[in-house]
Amino acid sequence: MFSYRCTSCGRDYEITSHLFSCSCGGLFDLKPYEKTFDTYSLPWSLVRYAKMLPLFGGVDLLKSVSMGEGMTPLVRDKTGGYLKLDFLQPTLSYKDRGAALLVATAKALGVTSLAIDSSGNAGVSVAAYARRAEMLAHVFVPETTSDKKVRQLELFGAKVHRGGDRDFASRTVMEYLETEKDTFYASHIYNPFFTHGVKTLFYEIIEQLRDDVPKNIVVPLGNGTLVLGAYEAVADLMELGVISNPPKLIAVQAASCDPIYRLVHSDRLTQRDLDSGSTIAEGIAIPSPPRGSQIASLLLKNDGDVVVVSEKMIRDAHSKLLSAGVDVEPTAAASYAGYLQLRDSDGPSDTTVVVLTGAGLKSL
Amino acid sequence: MFSYRCTSCGRDYEITSHLFSCSCGGLFDLKPYEKTFDTYSLPWSLVRYAKMLPLFGGVDLLKSVSMGEGMTPLVRDKTGGYLKLDFLQPTLSYKDRGAALLVATAKALGVTSLAIDSSGNAGVSVAAYARRAEMLAHVFVPETTSDKKVRQLELFGAKVHRGGDRDFASRTVMEYLETEKDTFYASHIYNPFFTHGVKTLFYEIIEQLRDDVPKNIVVPLGNGTLVLGAYEAVADLMELGVISNPPKLIAVQAASCDPIYRLVHSDRLTQRDLDSGSTIAEGIAIPSPPRGSQIASLLLKNDGDVVVVSEKMIRDAHSKLLSAGVDVEPTAAASYAGYLQLRDSDGPSDTTVVVLTGAGLKSL
Ligand SMILES: [Zn+2]
Ligand SMILES: [Zn+2]
Repeated sequence: MFSYRCTSCGRDYEITSHLFSCSCGGLFDLKPYEKTFDTYSLPWSLVRYAKMLPLFGGVDLLKSVSMGEGMTPLVRDKTGGYLKLDFLQPTLSYKDRGAALLVATAKALGVTSLAIDSSGNAGVSVAAYARRAEMLAHVFVPETTSDKKVRQLELFGAKVHRGGDRDFASRTVMEYLETEKDTFYASHIYNPFFTHGVKTLFYEIIEQLRDDVPKNIVVPLGNGTLVLGAYEAVADLMELGVISNPPKLIAVQAASCDPIYRLVHSDRLTQRDLDSGSTIAEGIAIPSPPRGSQIASLLLKNDGDVVVVSEKMIRDAHSKLLSAGVDVEPTAAASYAGYLQLRDSDGPSDTTVVVLTGAGLKSL
Repeated sequence: MFSYRCTSCGRDYEITSHLFSCSCGGLFDLKPYEKTFDTYSLPWSLVRYAKMLPLFGGVDLLKSVSMGEGMTPLVRDKTGGYLKLDFLQPTLSYKDRGAALLVATAKALGVTSLAIDSSGNAGVSVAAYARRAEMLAHVFVPETTSDKKVRQLELFGAKVHRGGDRDFASRTVMEYLETEKDTFYASHIYNPFFTHGVKTLFYEIIEQLRDDVPKNIVVPLGNGTLVLGAYEAVADLMELGVISNPPKLIAVQAASCDPIYRLVHSDRLTQRDLDSGSTIAEGIAIPSPPRGSQIASLLLKNDGDVVVVSEKMIRDAHSKLLSAGVDVEPTAAASYAGYLQLRDSDGPSDTTVVVLTGAGLKSL
């Protein structure tokens, strides 16, 4: 019923194959499967959308792995926009949506040990769900990862492999998977089950706004998980006739680390430094996103856009959110900064939703 | 329509009086008001229960103050119990339920400045909602309050008054209110609007378990906010015929700080030291709860109970929750410790819900 499908050559692979990319080098999505936009009123979790999800292990398995992720608030902002407080989930980031579905899939495959390379919230999220599902999580993080983050991973019983830079962590996890054949690669970037968990975020926005389908949805853009999730959701909802006009997706990068902005707006580039810099928004500090060109193509094809924000704009946006009572981590503040910039330049009064991805205490 | 009512002498006071206790010294509840157990499907927030709440300023005011508090997950535990992850709220504690309603009330009263004495989550929660509602919050905390907590308060624009011990903070706020007559006392202990916000937690449990009304609900016990909220909710739901058998409330104190345990179980006491000690569970480290005797009477009258847990039991309970993927602060771990103790001694297989009150990152 469910298969991986290569986004490059279209070849299908069994979920049980434990592969995470095609022999052609292409990355996986899932083969289309049947969906019904019918929500369950209980439990208050991802299970709400069980009929829309690729439940490889069935709904009861998702129920047992679930920690009540999803069903996060949508709050009106003073500017008239809506804030999606998607950090109000078990490990305090939106990644729990993806981790719940991915770990449930791994459980159905009989996995007892999994690995992920992540310097941020995805690692913590996968570690927590893996622990709940009684699997050992190996998390590969760069040397620069904060002690606090490492401590969180260890609290959830993860084996932390720390060293080198972010690229080193990616290479090391690949080497590890080469030797440890039974270890499942629970990647939030490569594995499409993660994306299909994340897409529920956008189902919720549509549900929460009812007849007022948003014109714009603003998301932070690092590896592109939210962009992928958004377009999966939009495709589903268009296909099922739930919405007829897709919202415009506006993805936000830091000016100092903007690889996908540069792919999308290559015409605008003049003397920009093509080397990436650093940003306080660590969730989008991704100089070489593996799915970068796929994400750029998706945005171009669907009339989406990428905007960049400065470090000062991120700090100012954080302060503005605080004055609305909302504390977030810098990556989420970057998302709001992108919205504020858009609002200042184009002055859109159309319904706009800003996705806030991580809690402020993550970085305090 | 709404009035304060003294729990001792029964006298009523206008909400506009800005009083916070009766001239007889008695503490306030609200005069009974009309309710309907009719839930709104949107928005996902306290507004869901608008028809059950004392909305002194009306529902639109609550909507504007609300940040989507409430609607938290109920998750099955390996032991068969249910965990209410009530820390998944804007400031990461259950206090947001109370703060939302209390601050909405203050806003309706035209308040521009409010004060609260709190060494913990209530202060942060009230500060955040006050900021959102454009009020200045004065928060009185003891000298021992962590820098991290003070930083959080300051992020939300609160004026922090730090000094002395917890009792000193209580005395200082009273003195401050004596001189600053326009400042509203937004106390989570004295003001019953706070309690009426908190009671929604128990409406949710009943909704989430549908026909399976829980036999036991376990809560941590410091000032008794959750005990008051639970009995308000139970009274409402019994009166409206939503439930016919009230759940048994089990309140958990730290063995080293157990003033209400001692009031309830005075017959069991022998050579116990009547001076309180300290506990890592700072949310229940309340040696002299102002509503102590009211809480003890309520528990005795309603067949509730108080149990005590050791510091080791709290640490062990925290570890067990982590192995279920759930990270909480020590006060919430104490609640789970109380549940585990109960389970070991009585071995009840009846449906039991454990309320988890604050996120782990609050104390990391
Ligand atoms: Zn291929
Ligand atoms: Zn009185």
